[in-house]
Amino acid sequence: MEKAVRRIGVFTSGGDAPGMNAAIRAVVRTSLHMGIECVGIRRGYHGLINGDFTKLTFESVSDLSRRGGTMLYSARSEEFKTPAGQERAVATCKMLGLDALVGIGGDGTFSGLLCLAKRGLSVVGIPGTIDNDIACSSYTIGYDTACNTALESIDKLRDTMQSHERCSVVEVMGHRAGHLALTVGVACGATAVIVPEHPVDYEADLLEPIRRARLAGRTHFMIIVAEGVEGGAYSIGKVIEEATALDTRVTVLGHIQRGGSPSSRDRITATYMGYEAVRLLAEGKTCRVVALQGENYVDYDITEALQMTKSLDQHTYEVMRALTGVH
Amino acid sequence: MEKAVRRIGVFTSGGDAPGMNAAIRAVVRTSLHMGIECVGIRRGYHGLINGDFTKLTFESVSDLSRRGGTMLYSARSEEFKTPAGQERAVATCKMLGLDALVGIGGDGTFSGLLCLAKRGLSVVGIPGTIDNDIACSSYTIGYDTACNTALESIDKLRDTMQSHERCSVVEVMGHRAGHLALTVGVACGATAVIVPEHPVDYEADLLEPIRRARLAGRTHFMIIVAEGVEGGAYSIGKVIEEATALDTRVTVLGHIQRGGSPSSRDRITATYMGYEAVRLLAEGKTCRVVALQGENYVDYDITEALQMTKSLDQHTYEVMRALTGVH
Amino acid sequence: MEKAVRRIGVFTSGGDAPGMNAAIRAVVRTSLHMGIECVGIRRGYHGLINGDFTKLTFESVSDLSRRGGTMLYSARSEEFKTPAGQERAVATCKMLGLDALVGIGGDGTFSGLLCLAKRGLSVVGIPGTIDNDIACSSYTIGYDTACNTALESIDKLRDTMQSHERCSVVEVMGHRAGHLALTVGVACGATAVIVPEHPVDYEADLLEPIRRARLAGRTHFMIIVAEGVEGGAYSIGKVIEEATALDTRVTVLGHIQRGGSPSSRDRITATYMGYEAVRLLAEGKTCRVVALQGENYVDYDITEALQMTKSLDQHTYEVMRALTGVH
Amino acid sequence: MEKAVRRIGVFTSGGDAPGMNAAIRAVVRTSLHMGIECVGIRRGYHGLINGDFTKLTFESVSDLSRRGGTMLYSARSEEFKTPAGQERAVATCKMLGLDALVGIGGDGTFSGLLCLAKRGLSVVGIPGTIDNDIACSSYTIGYDTACNTALESIDKLRDTMQSHERCSVVEVMGHRAGHLALTVGVACGATAVIVPEHPVDYEADLLEPIRRARLAGRTHFMIIVAEGVEGGAYSIGKVIEEATALDTRVTVLGHIQRGGSPSSRDRITATYMGYEAVRLLAEGKTCRVVALQGENYVDYDITEALQMTKSLDQHTYEVMRALTGVH
Repeated sequence: MEKAVRRIGVFTSGGDAPGMNAAIRAVVRTSLHMGIECVGIRRGYHGLINGDFTKLTFESVSDLSRRGGTMLYSARSEEFKTPAGQERAVATCKMLGLDALVGIGGDGTFSGLLCLAKRGLSVVGIPGTIDNDIACSSYTIGYDTACNTALESIDKLRDTMQSHERCSVVEVMGHRAGHLALTVGVACGATAVIVPEHPVDYEADLLEPIRRARLAGRTHFMIIVAEGVEGGAYSIGKVIEEATALDTRVTVLGHIQRGGSPSSRDRITATYMGYEAVRLLAEGKTCRVVALQGENYVDYDITEALQMTKSLDQHTYEVMRALTGVH
Repeated sequence: MEKAVRRIGVFTSGGDAPGMNAAIRAVVRTSLHMGIECVGIRRGYHGLINGDFTKLTFESVSDLSRRGGTMLYSARSEEFKTPAGQERAVATCKMLGLDALVGIGGDGTFSGLLCLAKRGLSVVGIPGTIDNDIACSSYTIGYDTACNTALESIDKLRDTMQSHERCSVVEVMGHRAGHLALTVGVACGATAVIVPEHPVDYEADLLEPIRRARLAGRTHFMIIVAEGVEGGAYSIGKVIEEATALDTRVTVLGHIQRGGSPSSRDRITATYMGYEAVRLLAEGKTCRVVALQGENYVDYDITEALQMTKSLDQHTYEVMRALTGVH
Repeated sequence: MEKAVRRIGVFTSGGDAPGMNAAIRAVVRTSLHMGIECVGIRRGYHGLINGDFTKLTFESVSDLSRRGGTMLYSARSEEFKTPAGQERAVATCKMLGLDALVGIGGDGTFSGLLCLAKRGLSVVGIPGTIDNDIACSSYTIGYDTACNTALESIDKLRDTMQSHERCSVVEVMGHRAGHLALTVGVACGATAVIVPEHPVDYEADLLEPIRRARLAGRTHFMIIVAEGVEGGAYSIGKVIEEATALDTRVTVLGHIQRGGSPSSRDRITATYMGYEAVRLLAEGKTCRVVALQGENYVDYDITEALQMTKSLDQHTYEVMRALTGVH
Repeated sequence: MEKAVRRIGVFTSGGDAPGMNAAIRAVVRTSLHMGIECVGIRRGYHGLINGDFTKLTFESVSDLSRRGGTMLYSARSEEFKTPAGQERAVATCKMLGLDALVGIGGDGTFSGLLCLAKRGLSVVGIPGTIDNDIACSSYTIGYDTACNTALESIDKLRDTMQSHERCSVVEVMGHRAGHLALTVGVACGATAVIVPEHPVDYEADLLEPIRRARLAGRTHFMIIVAEGVEGGAYSIGKVIEEATALDTRVTVLGHIQRGGSPSSRDRITATYMGYEAVRLLAEGKTCRVVALQGENYVDYDITEALQMTKSLDQHTYEVMRALTGVH
């Protein structure tokens, strides 16, 4: 028979994302509601190894949902990649009497949880990353806020690009994934979007859309480039200037996309996922990732989740092409 | 054989919602991309009856996605409810040579489209309302922006309620539906949410949560009330003051929830739905409503769609209860 | 010879205003920089009477500038209006060894400081109120943020009013003072602004401007009303509907104007004023109010400051009239 | 005797700034109110040379105040620097029957106006630039919005820098002037601010403040750098990483600081300045720059204005130093 969970640890790991605090709050409050104690581990696996923790109470997470960043800090840990490091992490859990762990982050976080599960701990992962690149879940905490933040900046850029009739090249986050770039591109009405998943044909994917828009009467242009595109936004800007002589300005949005008060969607998703994580642990489940599929919260085995893949929505390309060029 | 669509009309009707402009842009651009002309009908059915229109070109919808409201205006029409009014609307379509119509709005808009379909016009509806109360679609254009707008105001209220250790009662939109209230309530970490779908038990649903939060250390409280609740926020405020002697302040957010630049999610959804509407018409379909189900854009027969019902997510209540009270 | 100040107390009192936290931070940091200890008194005069305090360190005010509300809470105190209450407040200062007090708030706060000065305490006041109604200072902390918050809401309202071609009546804060209403009115391009300082001539100040705008082609209208106007926004709305048959909607912005992250201007002003307050005390001055005159930070004797009066800028009226009507 | 002004032209020139549209609206509406016609010149001096204009009516500037950018576009003109170009500009004015011109921009714009004044045109300049570097005026249109935009981005960066305990180096606009950097630095509570007006002593101005903050308990740091600093933010970032081994991230905010809906302060100032410009011309004045001095709107002779100089407020440095370090 499954032993009842009496005390759980929660931590954030990897790049921070808006909504992580709302997830922490949900884990804490749900635990307390179910009669389970909750301990916050600071600085991810680094803190787990070094016993860097804080007791979390009902009031300690009050007014937390609306805060950007993570109150538990995040950090990288080379040590945790070694068996010795993992042993030390397990030892911390034993010392603190933690029956289970909730880790909020991306695939790296889940891999770490898997190692701990193999050493006997009950673990559940929550997908939190602004890149929306967790294969098993249609949505990850932080993505919506990052889209809105990028969009607000792009709207501001459009004001000045329009006034000066310039071409704006904007680099948004996404090392390996173009989800953010594509979504933001459609939302802002970009002339073209360049992502790392596709080889770029400058003529067909970049210059021709600009020319078609110019022919349709447009005098300013917005090009969205994902971080991971070779050469980044600056190289795309150079291509445009050389081919079109347009007055071109490059902006790299950078880390501002990671911060800010989370949107309604991120707070809601984080709250539900935090609740689900504790519910799974309370029901004796382990080694799961909470995921969103359509409207439903589901869960996957971590090993299975890490093997899944996610690709860019091809349909979005069709839609975008339809909207930015005339017949 | 289906006759090819050559010219379509597009209009907005009922209460406006952020993202309607993005949907208009998508209808126009997709039409032009497919070689279809596009005419904007101003002021909904009223304009359809009176021939109030404007030709829409590629550039006429440029930079439109980010604008709140609707560039085609919206209005009520008593005349359209009569057979004579509907005849005049059909006559306008004949005069302008419109093969098909796209109407953006709620159930009232779709009922109107159904009348026109019965008189031989090809029609497609797009769900646009901040209430998210269209049964066939899991999402309606404008809902996300309205949630974020309400949330930003509530975050501001919380600053001052916290400073003065008061109880805030906030009325959000929703005459018949509590979706907005419930979502915003979970997102802001409300102590209680009161919706029109449920009879209110003041003691269990309102006063006891406040008391439990007070016992857990909380000194300020946030109560969300949907517009349609009997007596509205003011009557709830009175109940609280009388029962608890808390210094209570009522805020009715009102029409600010209808305006503002649409969020990323609303622009994206509106863009896809506008694209789908034209695609359906171009494929010879008629009498359909575009809808979102999970991640997928689908379509329903209008008659069928109008008969569907949607209820509040009961699970959300459980989650909320778990988060606002201790064991 | 003046005794050196060694420990000062700081508190906020009266209605809270965005930027109060930035002022607290400046008082704390400046004190520590000058080798003075700093104690936070919670809940204004109520806390001063009851010894409700917290030690403030360098890190305790870190990241505070951007937070709305006041970390020291605010409250009313009937007891402080009595000599016995004032005695108890002085006793608390003696107990805690406070040589001096900095009070942040409005005229009520300054009157309280005057009472304490008469009982031998060194005191300095900082004007913090969203009403900008402190006579000796051209600017009060919180005013700019309140203007921006009101304006953002009004911009949202305009989206929907424009779509439906309605008349919007918006009530902004200001019981006795119309500064906020007039500023916001000019900034949003209101058709008319109604303030408590002037008797309203409905025909000349309200209806005629609406008619002139309608004649100039305008189909939606924005009327700004200060809270203190007799009957408030609802009565103004009724007058308009009866006289013009316009579809009119009333919105009371309420307490959202008090909250929110402070604007750059409010953080800057609060920071300078906090610095000045400590500098004055360190120089042995007492019974002063810090004030802004044009670009310069100056200070006034509290008694003198309380006797000064401030009136609405008449020139603003001329400007507004010029902009909302044609020749 | 002065000839009455009957038709004026208005244009924007140089870098655009939020609030320029509000100034255009004020010029148009005030003109019409005074019975003067108003013509918009597009693309600054380039448009003046090429007769690129648009008639401006009461309704054509409706709902304009809240829009970023400039509806009249802005552009550079090499041709205007030649006598031939200036002749052509004067010829356009004669052709269109413009008695007077209002130019909105910076010192370059005013120099151009001076050339035209020497050729017999009545001219008035309005200071519009986000750099606040017009010597004769304590404030320039766009500065406040740029400060708020930079601050909002920095607040977002702080969320993620705090979570990861990093050092953030942020480059804000300002080629020759550090006003924006210094204001934003004080407002965000920066650890250090580096401006082009002062030679940088890395040890004293950059590294020592970081160390002192670290000693006071701080684990994340915010450094603000003005664009014009040699090497820019990247070189400052390198210095920090080498000297402190802090995980350092550089963000260049760039052109987003030029866009966005103008703040209340910018709309108000722009409205007053637009009004004053027309009033001056209507009174027969010419060759003036409208300026703000403290609370008062004044005007200067353009030649005189161009000779004035403005330096960084030294007092701000003292305040900043007091707030970021302990005794």
